[in-house]
Amino acid sequence: MPELKNNRFINACFRESVDRTPVWMMRQAGRYLPEYLESRKKAPNFMDFCKQPELCCEVTMQPLDRFPLDASIIFSDILTIPDAMGMDLNFIQGVGPVFNDPIRSSADLNKLDLNNTTEKCQYVYDAINLVKKELDNKLPLIGFAGSPWTLATYMVEGQGTKTFDVIRQMLYRDPDLLSQILQAITDSLVDYLNAQIAAGVDAIMIFDSWGGVLSPFTYESFSLKYMREIISKLNREVDGKKIPVIMFTKGGGLWLENQVTSGADVLGLDWTIDIVEAKRRVGNKAALQGNLDPAFLFAKPTAIKQEVKRILSAYNGAPGHIFNLGHGIHKDTPIEGVEAMFAALGE
Amino acid sequence: MPELKNNRFINACFRESVDRTPVWMMRQAGRYLPEYLESRKKAPNFMDFCKQPELCCEVTMQPLDRFPLDASIIFSDILTIPDAMGMDLNFIQGVGPVFNDPIRSSADLNKLDLNNTTEKCQYVYDAINLVKKELDNKLPLIGFAGSPWTLATYMVEGQGTKTFDVIRQMLYRDPDLLSQILQAITDSLVDYLNAQIAAGVDAIMIFDSWGGVLSPFTYESFSLKYMREIISKLNREVDGKKIPVIMFTKGGGLWLENQVTSGADVLGLDWTIDIVEAKRRVGNKAALQGNLDPAFLFAKPTAIKQEVKRILSAYNGAPGHIFNLGHGIHKDTPIEGVEAMFAALGE
Repeated sequence: MPELKNNRFINACFRESVDRTPVWMMRQAGRYLPEYLESRKKAPNFMDFCKQPELCCEVTMQPLDRFPLDASIIFSDILTIPDAMGMDLNFIQGVGPVFNDPIRSSADLNKLDLNNTTEKCQYVYDAINLVKKELDNKLPLIGFAGSPWTLATYMVEGQGTKTFDVIRQMLYRDPDLLSQILQAITDSLVDYLNAQIAAGVDAIMIFDSWGGVLSPFTYESFSLKYMREIISKLNREVDGKKIPVIMFTKGGGLWLENQVTSGADVLGLDWTIDIVEAKRRVGNKAALQGNLDPAFLFAKPTAIKQEVKRILSAYNGAPGHIFNLGHGIHKDTPIEGVEAMFAALGE
Repeated sequence: MPELKNNRFINACFRESVDRTPVWMMRQAGRYLPEYLESRKKAPNFMDFCKQPELCCEVTMQPLDRFPLDASIIFSDILTIPDAMGMDLNFIQGVGPVFNDPIRSSADLNKLDLNNTTEKCQYVYDAINLVKKELDNKLPLIGFAGSPWTLATYMVEGQGTKTFDVIRQMLYRDPDLLSQILQAITDSLVDYLNAQIAAGVDAIMIFDSWGGVLSPFTYESFSLKYMREIISKLNREVDGKKIPVIMFTKGGGLWLENQVTSGADVLGLDWTIDIVEAKRRVGNKAALQGNLDPAFLFAKPTAIKQEVKRILSAYNGAPGHIFNLGHGIHKDTPIEGVEAMFAALGE
């Protein structure tokens, strides 16, 4: 196993010392980049695009040419799994992803093809292979998946939602059905993420984008429990290389004490929590990643610089800190804002 | 000033002892009640309905006939103020409230009529007068408004949103413009809420429904700061009657220590925080209200009972606790669920 030339990100994940705080950006390959929009024209349908390894590789590499990033993340989508389960997925302009037949009953669940999800995502592993070759061990590559709860929100609601009424009502009305759905997703995700590790990713991130709509008690039993199971079943060491796991529950700042029991090496933070408080509460039980409000990149460079310094000062170079946004970068973000952020990080 | 026959709610607001924990429900007059849906037919356009004091009085009284409530809340909407400012408001089926000309610039702000907002809401004070007569001092009546930040989200975004991109980007790109908008709303709200107090309400609640999308720092400077100003300018004592103020920032559980500096007597809790933790952090600096996930009312009666007992046990009858939902009751809520909640509270 050849060593990575830039090990900052991996070392920080394991709370080992680094020469400077590593940085990457959630959704760093995305619509804010003109070169990404250009690439997207080659396959305008989003899932078609995700299924072409060459295109995924192309856009994964794009932000690395522009910015001094310490990690890359495979270009893909969290909805690859429901798609592989045979759910009819459409991306509708102005609405986002839509499943025409959402899961509302045991019968709906039984109609899903749960047996070959891992194999059907071969295009993801192919993309990982291509990117690893392209990276030539310059930087680590992160693989990822949505959390069971977050995938279930899409599969049950059928589309994005402001209030998550359907799934939250199902949770209380029929907790057994929801548990079955979550277990089915969990089983698929274990194999899916282990296949990504086998294909060569250097780290795993689990995006629990909608865990924050739960209560402390239902977060434990309908989201964290399943992430804990996944993390416990991942191949955390491959050919002597240790694979760190990052878990990110957006809106989960109140439950950090519970999150450190997940087995994750790193916890993601959104912008609703002061990283100083998060560090105090998490202590040496996990590294922390995130915290910059993506909307802050719309501010003036001087304000961005001040905010970057504030976040950095929480650790002041001490081990266990990865600089990142608190959520995916917004499509309208001015490149100048991103540049101002990197300038402040480089000072 | 005649005394209220049921003073449980007011006493709990001031952390005085009560014979049992008082209860009311956010949005207790609403679409889950068949009699409300029947009343609504008399004025299908929502703002038209809000502008008819007799109809507002009628639906305000409805839940009191069904459930052993300890407080009533005037039926109205938080968007009365932007409406009075001359913003063109429409309620569109499946979308919710829509402003055709959202505020995106100083020019947009200058077009608003900021001078006579209080007078234009006379229909609200008329409704308060009617309800007070109807209540005959049996129960206290709560008046309310949206917080400046929450009203600004609607006025700037133009409609409900999952991500609050427009206003959050404005916050960082043009903080001065957003501050001007928030100050204009604040000035109107001070007069509006004092006019509700003059009309006879016994308590005031400020709904900061979308404060939770901010960071700890921007919550202070773009939401809490303005609520603090409003609270400091309210007439808190009328003819020897003390008027308590409830402040509710949905998603604000991380910032309770800052919220207690608002001057509010009571802080509202959504369901994302354990009330035991909230009580520990707030101590004797404020009473607490809320916490039951409205979706819990879709569960089986035995589960509802257990959850009600859990929330009650946080205070166990000690002063400073008002039982409520963590957000407005959902339109599809089964009446049996509400009845199970009241049965558990009455045991």
